[in-house]
Order: sequence, then structure tokens, then C-alpha cells
Amino acid sequence: MIKVILLGSGNVATHLFQAFSKATEVEVVQVFSRTLSEDFPKSIQTSDFTKISDADMYIICVSDDAIASVSNQLEFENRLVVHTSGSTDFNLLDKKNRRGVFYPLQTFSKNKSVSFTEIPICLESEHVSDYLLLEKVAQSISNSVYKIDGNQRKALHVSAVFVCNFTNHLYQIGNEICNQNNIPFSILQPLIEETASKIKTLSPKEAQTGPALRKDSKTIAKHIDFLSDENQVEIYKLLTKSIQNVEKL
Amino acid sequence: MIKVILLGSGNVATHLFQAFSKATEVEVVQVFSRTLSEDFPKSIQTSDFTKISDADMYIICVSDDAIASVSNQLEFENRLVVHTSGSTDFNLLDKKNRRGVFYPLQTFSKNKSVSFTEIPICLESEHVSDYLLLEKVAQSISNSVYKIDGNQRKALHVSAVFVCNFTNHLYQIGNEICNQNNIPFSILQPLIEETASKIKTLSPKEAQTGPALRKDSKTIAKHIDFLSDENQVEIYKLLTKSIQNVEKL
Ligand SMILES: NC(=O)c1ccc[n+]([C@@H]2O[C@H](COP(=O)([O-])OP(=O)(O)OC[C@H]3O[C@@H](n4cnc5c(N)ncnc54)[C@H](OP(=O)(O)O)[C@@H]3O)[C@@H](O)[C@H]2O)c1
Ligand SMILES: NC(=O)c1ccc[n+]([C@@H]2O[C@H](COP(=O)([O-])OP(=O)(O)OC[C@H]3O[C@@H](n4cnc5c(N)ncnc54)[C@H](OP(=O)(O)O)[C@@H]3O)[C@@H](O)[C@H]2O)c1
Repeated sequence: MIKVILLGSGNVATHLFQAFSKATEVEVVQVFSRTLSEDFPKSIQTSDFTKISDADMYIICVSDDAIASVSNQLEFENRLVVHTSGSTDFNLLDKKNRRGVFYPLQTFSKNKSVSFTEIPICLESEHVSDYLLLEKVAQSISNSVYKIDGNQRKALHVSAVFVCNFTNHLYQIGNEICNQNNIPFSILQPLIEETASKIKTLSPKEAQTGPALRKDSKTIAKHIDFLSDENQVEIYKLLTKSIQNVEKL
Repeated sequence: MIKVILLGSGNVATHLFQAFSKATEVEVVQVFSRTLSEDFPKSIQTSDFTKISDADMYIICVSDDAIASVSNQLEFENRLVVHTSGSTDFNLLDKKNRRGVFYPLQTFSKNKSVSFTEIPICLESEHVSDYLLLEKVAQSISNSVYKIDGNQRKALHVSAVFVCNFTNHLYQIGNEICNQNNIPFSILQPLIEETASKIKTLSPKEAQTGPALRKDSKTIAKHIDFLSDENQVEIYKLLTKSIQNVEKL
């Protein structure tokens, strides 16, 4: 049995804990959290750095800003310590330990369950000899494990901002427009899902539709005229221009 | 049996024809298309306005720009004629016929099949007495039928541009960044699907995550520095600002 310790008690720690609970080869033997959390059994929690047990791997799932400081406060050396951040270099971790990254490429919220088996886990290890263990732990919860270097991870993180955070913000704008016109936002759900699933079989370039692509300037003008929010108008214009630029390539 | 005639042979006509083929109460008795199309049986196609048969309802599914002209060329009067456009007023149709709208709120491509039962169909009729027939035809292929007036339809169409066309363009940017860094774009698919499905249970505002929301200026600066394309930088900055503005509300 591979022994893992989680540090942090937020979204990622909670989902990882649930996923590892179902794994047969990995056991979470302890959770370090500066405040007691109801999401983990009391018996395995500690908030005291001096009480952290022995384990094969330590996964730091705290806010990006706190990763370095948490890793500095660990009182042991030469063990495998990884973080779960998409945008943080592994060498921000204290170099007294063997370092790595265990980045689950997904959007987590505590009140929304996810199936870990489909979630890509992006791995990086400072020492080649640690990679196998890292991989074994990742494969115990996911079928989609990738070796990704620091630069690629940075690229993935930026991409994720576009396809997840920014996309969700466009949903938010759609929601606002619906509210202002007494239309239930749920009408848009099938369109949103089809848009996301279309690109499993078509490239985004092939899947593109709409007035911007068709250079339908009459409809574009009507839409801009319809929008009352200056910020929405600015986004409409910039993304329309951007779609039309891609087509020129 | 309700007799329907489709005018046009593009994406929407093709998908409607397939959906009506499975309906028990509606039959497509003819397809008008200015050029012969392989997507419909030859026996029911015509490209001659004088040969258009009798039917209970005529669905004009041609490009927005051609809707008025096609409706003008119809040689009959006082029958129910509708178009399928999200952004076109029903009174663009020639007033010699009884007019309406049959707008399926979905993104269609010929080479991507969809299940019509989940697709919202937005209906509007000039005469109250026509609404029931319109509704019956829509309900024969979809479980999700809405009465939507012209202004609401315009709002829906603008919303659809944000949540579908613009969202797909963000996928395209994610794809480009992946390509530039030798990462398979498919790694992002689970994230894209989870982002779309999350808003079935959370509002987009509740579902929002990421550096913009967290006001994580270090990560934002790193991302902007990472992007080499000026256009991508502009989009990154504008959407980041927009997410932060929403939070102030
Ligand atoms: N959420 C996602 O979608 C996602 C996806 C992939 C990767 N990640 C990465 O995973 C990591 C954790 O993210 P998250 O979403 O789980 O964050 P979160 O829900 O905000 O939780 C952050 C955790 O860090 C702890 N923490 C913060 N500052 C600390 C400090 N100075 N000392 C000790 N603990 C501290 C917090 O403790 P308190 O509860 O006591 O404040 C909390 O347990 C981050 O590196 C993030 O980039 C997140
Ligand atoms: N695609 C979507 O995702 C979608 C979704 C909802 C609603 N709509 C609406 O549905 C309608 C059709 O869209 P679509 O995507 O099916 O378009 P499409 O695939 O581009 O097909 C357009 C059709 O219109 C015909 N046409 C164009 N100009 C014509 C003219 N002057 N006279 C006669 N026929 C003409 C074309 O004939 P040729 O093949 O001979 O050129 C073709 O059959 C539009 O009003 C659109 O706004 C589309």
C-alpha cells in the first residue's frame, strides 16, 4: 500500500481524498490542515507540522501563494513532495525534499462532485527515479495520466483559463441577457453542451459558426445595437474581430 | 397527418428532415431547393416555385438574407409560412401568407448528428389561431417547446453568440496554445465538458473560478507574459477585467 499525505483542506484536497478512498493501492494516512475541516475524518487530521507522519508521498494542495511557505515548514528531508498547481514551478518547493508536480486538469468546487477517472493528471518529477511512484499514484485514480514539463504545464494553465474561466464568464453574460428578457437561462443549456461536445469530433476551427464567421455585418450591427452594457459590447466586438482574423489565416 | 414542406437544403433543413422522419404525426411531403441535394429523396425535391405542393405548414430554412426573397416567390396565399432564423423578424416574410417563426436553438453542422428531442424550439405566430399547429409540429420532434416573442428571440440569439460562437472561439485559442507547445488538445476536453455541465447545478456566477476571480495578479501577469499573440493578450485582459467587474456588483 502506498501511503500518501495531503496538505490543505480545500477543493482539491477534498476531491483527491474522495478519489483515493476508492483506490486500492493508495491510502491517505493523514491530512494536514491549519484549521480542522469537516470534510475529512477527525482521526487522521493534524494542524501541527511536528506531527506529520511518515509517507511515500506528500501532496501540497494549498493556495498557490502558500505552497512555498508550507513546504519550508515541513520538518523532514529527502522525501517526495509535490504540489497540485498549474501555474507554479516545482522548484518553488523547498529543495530539502525531492520535488514534483501532481496537477489535476479540472475545475473543482466543493459542492460539485466529479469523476476522477476521466480527469487528466499532469505529472512532473525533479528526479527521474520518482516518476514511477508518481505515475502509480496518479493511475490509481485516473485513466488519463500525462508527463508534462513546466513549460507545457504553464501553456495548459493559460489554455484552461480560456476554455474554462473565460468560457464560464461568457455563460454568465448569456445568463444576464436572459434575465433581462425574462427567459429561463436553462433554454441555453443544450446549446452550451452541444458546443462543448462538438469539438470531440470536429476541431474548434471546423466547428465555428455564427454571424462573425459568416461576416454577416447586418446581424452583427443589430446585436451590438441590442446590447445595453458597454462591457458586453466591447467583448462582442473584440471576439467578432478575433474570429474574423482566424479565418484569414 | 400534418403535411410540412421544407424550403432550403442546408444544415437546418437536413436536420429537420431527419427529425421529422421519425415523427408519427408529421410528414415532410416536399423539399424545395434551388439546387438538387443528396440529403433528401429525389422524388420529393423540387427547385421550381410553381411546383410547390399543398401543405399545412411551410418552413423556410434558407440563409437569413434570402428569407424575404424566397417568401416573396411563393405563389400561394393565406397559408402558414414560418422561418427558422433567430435574428429575423417574422414580418420580413411576405404578408400574403400567415406568418410565424420556428427557431431551433442549437448549433447545426451537416456532418454532426444531434438529438432533436432535447433541442429547445422557440415559436412565434402572427395569428393566435396558428399557434396550436405550430406547437404540435414542434412537439412532434422536441420535448422542449417555448413561446418566445420577437424581442426575446433577439435576446436569445445574442446570448447564443456569446455561449456558443464566442465560446467555441475560446476553444480555438486553447487549441492553438496547445499546438504551439506540443500538447494534445484532447487533454482539455474533460475540463471543457465539466465547465459546460457545472452550470446545470450552479449558476455561472457560482461556478466562476480562476486567477481573475481570485485577483491573483502574479498569475495574471505570468499568463500575459506567456502569450505571444497580441490578439490573445487583448482578449485575456478584457475578459479578466470583465470577470472582476461582475464581482463588484
Ligand atoms: N480549484 C481548482 O479548480 C484547481 C484545479 C487544479 C489545481 N488547483 C490548485 O490546487 C491548489 C489548491 O487549490 P484549491 O482550489 O483546493 O484551493 P482552496 O479551495 O482555496 O483551498 C486552499 C487551501 O490552502 C490552505 N491554505 C491557504 N493558505 C495557507 C497557509 N498559509 N498555510 C496553510 N494552509 C494554507 C487553506 O486553508 P484554510 O482553509 O485554513 O484557509 C485551504 O485548505 C492550488 O495550488 C491550485 O492552483 C486548483
Ligand atoms: N446552422 C445553425 O446552427 C442554425 C441554427 C438555428 C437557426 N438557423 C437558421 O436557419 C436558417 C438556415 O441556416 P442553415 O445553417 O441551414 O444555412 P445553410 O446550411 O447555409 O443553408 C442555406 C440554404 O439556403 C439556401 N439559399 C441561400 N440563398 C438562397 C436563395 N437566394 N434562394 C434560395 N435558396 C437559397 C441554400 O441553397 P444552396 O445550397 O443552393 O446555396 C441552402 O439550401 C437561417 O435562417 C439560420 O439563421 C441556423
